[in-house]
Amino acid sequence: MFNPAVFELLKTDSHSKARLGRLTTTRGVIDTPVFMPVGTQASVKALDSRELLEMGTQIILGNTYHLSIRPGMEIMAAAGGLHKFMNWTKPILTDSGGFQVFSLAKIRKIKPHGVEFRSHLDGSLLFLGPKESMNIQRIIGSDIAMVFDECPPHGASAAEMKGAVERTIRWAKECRVQPRAEGQFVFGIVQGANDAKLREHCAKELVAMDFDGYAIGGVSVGEPEPEMMSAVEITEPHLPAHKARYAMGLGTPAQLVELVARGVDMFDCVLPTRVARNGTAFTRKGTISIKGGSYKADFTPIEADCECFACKNFTRAYIRHLLNVNEILGLRLVSVHNSHLFLKVMEDMRTHLAAGTFHEFRQDFIAHYRPTEKVLLARQLHAAEKQDR
Amino acid sequence: MFNPAVFELLKTDSHSKARLGRLTTTRGVIDTPVFMPVGTQASVKALDSRELLEMGTQIILGNTYHLSIRPGMEIMAAAGGLHKFMNWTKPILTDSGGFQVFSLAKIRKIKPHGVEFRSHLDGSLLFLGPKESMNIQRIIGSDIAMVFDECPPHGASAAEMKGAVERTIRWAKECRVQPRAEGQFVFGIVQGANDAKLREHCAKELVAMDFDGYAIGGVSVGEPEPEMMSAVEITEPHLPAHKARYAMGLGTPAQLVELVARGVDMFDCVLPTRVARNGTAFTRKGTISIKGGSYKADFTPIEADCECFACKNFTRAYIRHLLNVNEILGLRLVSVHNSHLFLKVMEDMRTHLAAGTFHEFRQDFIAHYRPTEKVLLARQLHAAEKQDR
Repeated sequence: MFNPAVFELLKTDSHSKARLGRLTTTRGVIDTPVFMPVGTQASVKALDSRELLEMGTQIILGNTYHLSIRPGMEIMAAAGGLHKFMNWTKPILTDSGGFQVFSLAKIRKIKPHGVEFRSHLDGSLLFLGPKESMNIQRIIGSDIAMVFDECPPHGASAAEMKGAVERTIRWAKECRVQPRAEGQFVFGIVQGANDAKLREHCAKELVAMDFDGYAIGGVSVGEPEPEMMSAVEITEPHLPAHKARYAMGLGTPAQLVELVARGVDMFDCVLPTRVARNGTAFTRKGTISIKGGSYKADFTPIEADCECFACKNFTRAYIRHLLNVNEILGLRLVSVHNSHLFLKVMEDMRTHLAAGTFHEFRQDFIAHYRPTEKVLLARQLHAAEKQDR
Repeated sequence: MFNPAVFELLKTDSHSKARLGRLTTTRGVIDTPVFMPVGTQASVKALDSRELLEMGTQIILGNTYHLSIRPGMEIMAAAGGLHKFMNWTKPILTDSGGFQVFSLAKIRKIKPHGVEFRSHLDGSLLFLGPKESMNIQRIIGSDIAMVFDECPPHGASAAEMKGAVERTIRWAKECRVQPRAEGQFVFGIVQGANDAKLREHCAKELVAMDFDGYAIGGVSVGEPEPEMMSAVEITEPHLPAHKARYAMGLGTPAQLVELVARGVDMFDCVLPTRVARNGTAFTRKGTISIKGGSYKADFTPIEADCECFACKNFTRAYIRHLLNVNEILGLRLVSVHNSHLFLKVMEDMRTHLAAGTFHEFRQDFIAHYRPTEKVLLARQLHAAEKQDR
């Protein structure tokens, strides 16, 4: 089942750890660095497959936890898997359900071979472990499956974190030997929060199991940006260069650029579609709230020179109106723009990596992108703490 | 301003009053019979302009009342009219706001030159009359404007109805002489409920004013189907053959076929997109509730042989899942299918009218279409009442 040629490292940046690569699956080649739009419930929120393809989507993400509850595996199996169910012919990566079990589900009980929990939907008693998760992912038929891991919340105790890492390693071993869908790759997930020793230990154990790729988990769990960056920095050196690296659940456009510079190849994030539903648009200069009154007579596109369907056809004033009167088209157009921007930033990075100009692109992008106040304050706090030491 | 060639009557059916026609506006030719998707708030709910064009939309409807409140005429004027505001280059018809003032607005007071009412949104005091309505429609820049009429509810008293008809005539006269947008046509609206004398009187007065087309109003106000059909039947003989006839706010696919057979050329209706939001799909055999459990593993399209984007790409099982988990794509796909079906039925009627086979098409369509229980019961009641007389 293991295919040593799954990931090809084409080029490494001379100024950073950024990598240009290519991931070959049975359903097509994925150029990295890559952003994966999130299709939690067999739909990337507000978008259709045509819009996704038009904006250059190479691979989407599906959620094992959500899909196992609805539509359920009986229907998924009858449909012939998720690709056929949702009519998406390009690659799909599925998470393992671990993250959701630990963040969404009520009353969970960790057992040797998985987690007993109550559905966030109807409270019914469910069990998910390495065996169950891999079986669901096999039925879904994703091109890349993730191991079932334990993902503790930000701020968990050292003992809790250590236990989680040990279980993550043990469960990864179980996942490694489960039956897979044809051509399905399996990625390991490194946990360990901001403990360098724990991250190293977890990474080494997983690398010894020889997965098709490696994810950095335990990020996007509510930690401030500096901790997120450091979690990646302490993990990356222990991951093999010839395998793809995936940072789970991240991030803003500027964070994606900085994470690519730290050696990450793959990303997924709900931000582009989630904030769109509040009327927030991402631009290369930061976010803007399209609902704001200052745009009511602004007949320019969300972002100048943007080639997305929303920007080529509609103005801020029109989209603001749609959002204000709760027309679905409003949040859909912002979702189109945001998702397009995330994908385009990845494409720009690939172009600059190929041309040897990633360093200049990164400097320029970061100089123009204004992060949110929350991110800026977290950075200031981090810098102050460093000085105090 | 008046253009005698606006409507060309190309052919009349030999078995019914059905007409094949062509309406020429400055923004393009409209083949009739035609269905106009409703874009109340500058958006046909859940659909975008590309989807509308792909399904063969020739003209859409905008609502004066809603647009005058949001985005308001200041922004509309700054945008350069509704076409530019929403990026729709084909024709637009605007209603006059009369229907909404009488159905949506709170606390209204009828005055000689219009209606004083409170906004359904924030309760602010507003005034809409022939002058105001025509001015708003001029700023919107619709290709076809409607006169400001009084549309009483179903079951209004004879006196109320008579007063409404007199005001409708007087207000139509005022509308007739208001300034218009360039190339804008104005249609009169015949009121009079199910009173043949009143309908005739109203029609004759309006025809004497020489409008560019004539609408049958006071339908789709909660009346049972037989009354709706009869309102059209008693009005139609008093409308000139060489002008377009528009039945406002109607109807189901089977009703559209029957109304075309009664000599109507133009229709608008919120049904295709409104029922889609409840998960109800129209088919040539009647409606089906896609949310129903019987479709959970039905991997066929909503309707066999349908060429719409939803049916060509997705199954009932998938769309049911999307509706069940509240994914926007679900109601969007049903909206696409329903709107496409309404437009396709009109296209079929035009094809059969041209080929001289409308009679056969009508018989076949009605034989296969199962109306809702409500419509069937209203028909039975009507037949029983007829027998009792």
